[in-house]
Amino acid sequence: MSNAALTAGGRLAGRLLETLAQATTDPPGITRVAYGLGERFAHDLVREEAQKLGAVARTDAAGNLYLTLGGRDPDLPAIVIGSHLDSVPHGGNFDGAAGVAAGLAVMAELVRQGIRLQRDLIVLATRAEEAVWFPLSYPGSQAVLGLLDPQALEARRSDSGRTLADHMREEGFDPDAVRRGVPGIDAGGIAAFVEVHIEQGPRLVAAEAAVGIVTGIAGGFRYVDAKCLGAYAHSGAEPRFARHDSVLGFADLVAGLEVEWDALEREGHEATITFGRVQSDRTQHGGSRVLGELGFTLDVRSAEAATLERVEARLQAILAEVGAKRGVTFESGPRFTWEPATMSPVLIGRLDRAATELQMRAPHVPSGAGHDAATFAGAGIPTAMLFVRNENGSHNPHESMEIADLDQAIRLFLRFVTDFDNSDQP
Amino acid sequence: MSNAALTAGGRLAGRLLETLAQATTDPPGITRVAYGLGERFAHDLVREEAQKLGAVARTDAAGNLYLTLGGRDPDLPAIVIGSHLDSVPHGGNFDGAAGVAAGLAVMAELVRQGIRLQRDLIVLATRAEEAVWFPLSYPGSQAVLGLLDPQALEARRSDSGRTLADHMREEGFDPDAVRRGVPGIDAGGIAAFVEVHIEQGPRLVAAEAAVGIVTGIAGGFRYVDAKCLGAYAHSGAEPRFARHDSVLGFADLVAGLEVEWDALEREGHEATITFGRVQSDRTQHGGSRVLGELGFTLDVRSAEAATLERVEARLQAILAEVGAKRGVTFESGPRFTWEPATMSPVLIGRLDRAATELQMRAPHVPSGAGHDAATFAGAGIPTAMLFVRNENGSHNPHESMEIADLDQAIRLFLRFVTDFDNSDQP
Repeated sequence: MSNAALTAGGRLAGRLLETLAQATTDPPGITRVAYGLGERFAHDLVREEAQKLGAVARTDAAGNLYLTLGGRDPDLPAIVIGSHLDSVPHGGNFDGAAGVAAGLAVMAELVRQGIRLQRDLIVLATRAEEAVWFPLSYPGSQAVLGLLDPQALEARRSDSGRTLADHMREEGFDPDAVRRGVPGIDAGGIAAFVEVHIEQGPRLVAAEAAVGIVTGIAGGFRYVDAKCLGAYAHSGAEPRFARHDSVLGFADLVAGLEVEWDALEREGHEATITFGRVQSDRTQHGGSRVLGELGFTLDVRSAEAATLERVEARLQAILAEVGAKRGVTFESGPRFTWEPATMSPVLIGRLDRAATELQMRAPHVPSGAGHDAATFAGAGIPTAMLFVRNENGSHNPHESMEIADLDQAIRLFLRFVTDFDNSDQP
Repeated sequence: MSNAALTAGGRLAGRLLETLAQATTDPPGITRVAYGLGERFAHDLVREEAQKLGAVARTDAAGNLYLTLGGRDPDLPAIVIGSHLDSVPHGGNFDGAAGVAAGLAVMAELVRQGIRLQRDLIVLATRAEEAVWFPLSYPGSQAVLGLLDPQALEARRSDSGRTLADHMREEGFDPDAVRRGVPGIDAGGIAAFVEVHIEQGPRLVAAEAAVGIVTGIAGGFRYVDAKCLGAYAHSGAEPRFARHDSVLGFADLVAGLEVEWDALEREGHEATITFGRVQSDRTQHGGSRVLGELGFTLDVRSAEAATLERVEARLQAILAEVGAKRGVTFESGPRFTWEPATMSPVLIGRLDRAATELQMRAPHVPSGAGHDAATFAGAGIPTAMLFVRNENGSHNPHESMEIADLDQAIRLFLRFVTDFDNSDQP
């Protein structure tokens, strides 16, 4: 598809994303640290663009950014389109940012076409969605609704070691207000929360569809700093019987959880089990060491709460069994969890209808990854998500979304928002 | 045992080791980089001490240090007592240095007691024994005998990335002469090479013996930079069927080699199989990643060449099996090997006799770890080693050798060298 075939909004989104990529390049890939320079640049960029469109900009106590295009009746609950602007280290440019760019594109199309909505349209750019920075589930969107646990403000950023509260304050925001639960917007003030995000799996690529309508977001739990602890020794000198080898303990854990995964799938349950980091101590490891410590992360996801509980129970049993067998111990470290979230059937129905009107194929797809949308759905706000086809997954420099595909999501949301108050259904 | 019960030589060794520990502290533990500042400090320290005792000091083209106490007949082949002065990063103080200190202690006792040997006694301090710096087998002692493969001079130091030749030159030595095979001492000029080293395993602790006489040194092979390569993906978004998870591939490799290890032991063979480093890419890993790469080292040791060959063959089969099963590939990277070495039965007999005369218990023990002594044994020079009891293994900050135990080794070698030319046997 040539660039000329894009909507003007789509071209704007493409330009914004290109500017962002150039400014936050960090080979390989891009880095936009939560409450860091790259995230700040991105917030400044989208604020300026929205103001050019006539939107009013404000931030809340946590630094989330609200870009409001006034509707005919500002007392009605608003339609909010949002996503985040941080990225993982050396990640791709589209995870998060594409959703904010799409929101601005919808706004730009409304302005260009002279359409004034019944309700306010708010493009929301959240903060700190990527849990690699703070081991928390969506602290930015939690703060939008005044729901952030005050304890979370003490969580430390993985690169700086400083607290979320410190980083908020450093960027000019007000962690004390966040602590008191002051929301950026009341839940009652939101008629619908919608989010565009790149798909992070291969389903839309396989289905040859540019966009998909998300049915629900899996929940999960994660141990971000687990360790298998044995005893360091010399590889040549320590006889086998005397070893407490953390590598063997870890390998047993991997194998044990895989047996459980097999059993789950045989019984018809879906889950994923992933070790995203495996790391011996750089100051201790070496060719001739028996490793006394091996650090790792463990990430378990499922749309079914009972499946998550079952994996957790089996995990604890495996750790005990392996510890006894290998003469090692496991330190689980902090555990964080996120709840499964269901998308609004009413909004899914409206998106289906908009797709039909546009003669656009938009299959239904699940989301294994967590998203800001889960926070809004969890708070009882009608919530929907669109995925955009994306090669090579996300959280890596090889993310590959076509602007033409994002433009399809922009068209779909444009139809969705213009139809919103003309619809039969609430 | 109180300090007063030590020989004067033992007290000197204790002082030298204490000075070394203070100067090369690098918490946790000590660091003496091969051809780095810490190794240089150690060489300077022992040179000065030897010169105080009346020894003549010289270095060879590779920077190995020869401290010669002249004998009555300097034309006779010399007795050489040596070990190395580098350490692993954040290692212990005794691995290597204790052997050089013991050599100086023997020399000091000879001087104090007014004993002039028939032959020259050379205390040899080698360079770069710890393979963590250069992925080579004893390049220092190889250069002593003019045997260092010229290719080895191009090996790069793990911390600096610069070549062995560069580092030699920087320290004022002559890699071109090393390349030409100019020896520091001719093999024919050595009547016996003997080395004191801390034991790196638990056998002497278990036997409640201060010293042990080494029967042989295991050979082995090591892959210093192996990788399991899969494909990075998002843990929530990538379905199981689409994954190429390098962690699962690695865990299968660990399990597969352990099955082989079990089989070897059932059949009466001894070996060790160790993964000394396991490391995901810090710029790529994270809680929500499926890992596309996992780096590791693999170290395999045995006194039996056939056992080593068998493990290598099984390893290759496992890599192929796991690759096909998991959709991953393995990159082995550089392999380096070292040959098993047999200690001289004649010298072992003399050490047994010396121990009996001193009413000292000195059990025979194998060495699973490699030592400079292997180079001399491999060149056909009569070679022997003493181990000194040591808690907590080596290559770590918790090495724990008592100077009183080292003093027993000093007494044994003192008797060995004074008896050397009074013995019936050659």
